[in-house]
Amino acid sequence: MRVDILTIFPEMFSPLNQSMVGKAQEKEIVEIYTHDFRENADNKQRHVDDMPYGGGQGMLLMPQPIFDTMDKFSHENARVILLDPAGKKFNQKVAEELAKEEQLVFICGHYEGYDERIKSLVTDEISLGDFVLTGGEVAANVMIDAVVRLLPGVLGKQVSHEDDSFSSGLLEYPQYTRPEDFRGLRVPEVLMSGHHENIRKWRLTESLKKTLKRRPDLLENYSANEEEIKILEKLRETSDDTQDVVE
Amino acid sequence: MRVDILTIFPEMFSPLNQSMVGKAQEKEIVEIYTHDFRENADNKQRHVDDMPYGGGQGMLLMPQPIFDTMDKFSHENARVILLDPAGKKFNQKVAEELAKEEQLVFICGHYEGYDERIKSLVTDEISLGDFVLTGGEVAANVMIDAVVRLLPGVLGKQVSHEDDSFSSGLLEYPQYTRPEDFRGLRVPEVLMSGHHENIRKWRLTESLKKTLKRRPDLLENYSANEEEIKILEKLRETSDDTQDVVE
Repeated sequence: MRVDILTIFPEMFSPLNQSMVGKAQEKEIVEIYTHDFRENADNKQRHVDDMPYGGGQGMLLMPQPIFDTMDKFSHENARVILLDPAGKKFNQKVAEELAKEEQLVFICGHYEGYDERIKSLVTDEISLGDFVLTGGEVAANVMIDAVVRLLPGVLGKQVSHEDDSFSSGLLEYPQYTRPEDFRGLRVPEVLMSGHHENIRKWRLTESLKKTLKRRPDLLENYSANEEEIKILEKLRETSDDTQDVVE
Repeated sequence: MRVDILTIFPEMFSPLNQSMVGKAQEKEIVEIYTHDFRENADNKQRHVDDMPYGGGQGMLLMPQPIFDTMDKFSHENARVILLDPAGKKFNQKVAEELAKEEQLVFICGHYEGYDERIKSLVTDEISLGDFVLTGGEVAANVMIDAVVRLLPGVLGKQVSHEDDSFSSGLLEYPQYTRPEDFRGLRVPEVLMSGHHENIRKWRLTESLKKTLKRRPDLLENYSANEEEIKILEKLRETSDDTQDVVE
């Protein structure tokens, strides 16, 4: 995959050189290019923004630096993503969809907003969530991380997507590692029992309990099997005190 | 405000030294400290993760390096935030709430997950959205950006929060800056008319149109005034072709 990023803060993409995305670049699974569109501003002061027509506070990104930067590299079949709070919401499904593409282009604005004409270059307006940022860069870092993580060869064999929250449709069960007793906080006995069936049941119940309590919306679209339906019924009966149901 | 970040990738927070958050640090509106908890791992190999009890794929963050790192700095009245996909959803309201605090601590995991006991240190489990990341760092960058942006003195006088998407409850209207004609794409006449009342009406209509089309959920909680109710009724009547209603 090739990723091109239009930004006036190329240094803000240094997180992509670290950790798993950094390794994915080393392995040439993904190539990431940043384009500082200020360099293409056709005015002496290299301004990239100007006042809005019709009045109003704040500055807007001008179309010229963006259009001229896009002209400088090939992006024929690319998905061109504008980070915009009014765009469609980014989620795991969007990440999976973008992970199938050969090229992604991210246009990161700053300041109050964009000249609307920039949107004529764009295939997707995407929002990371219902909050406001100083610019699109930190949001693009997140989206690129979520997408590159899904490319074949990025996660090692011992790690898989299968147990991810959201991939199963349920939230994850609590997990514990060494030591058994840390400052008086103990690992639940069942997990050290070696009894696989009991461990499976405990984890499934905890997963359902957590999902029921925190994200009941996820259960609406979840096709539960017979065992899960029974556990959910039991959890719902005692929902005033779900905390104590299965411990 | 003071922000402490527990991470094994301190370099992934370099975006916070750029742009507005960088300036907020220079102005001492916010102090940001990263703590590499690998340095506090009490084993020779400086491992911070281990296998899950009860079996399963992937590695979990051990409690010891996190607890010992927390012991090394003061965080008495701090909000301690664990970035977790099962946590409550981050949004502008959460950002505004966090912006009132004097100290925030972010615990950023990597790998598959955390030892559950780490949560005993935590006041808030927060999720950036329904997607999976290689680690919490890029998500923490986003949350810190959204929060620091709201601190008094960070945004200049010419920029305000008032016109932000979500702050008004509606999505923003299209905006245009110079030139009037860019590659044949023209600024709408009304915005260059100088007629303030027409401009106001056009913008309000465009805002409502965009919100109705893309985020009707936002309108459910929006208390529209008489003028807005009339515009919405008209937009809904012609909803098969909202594109052409007001141009």
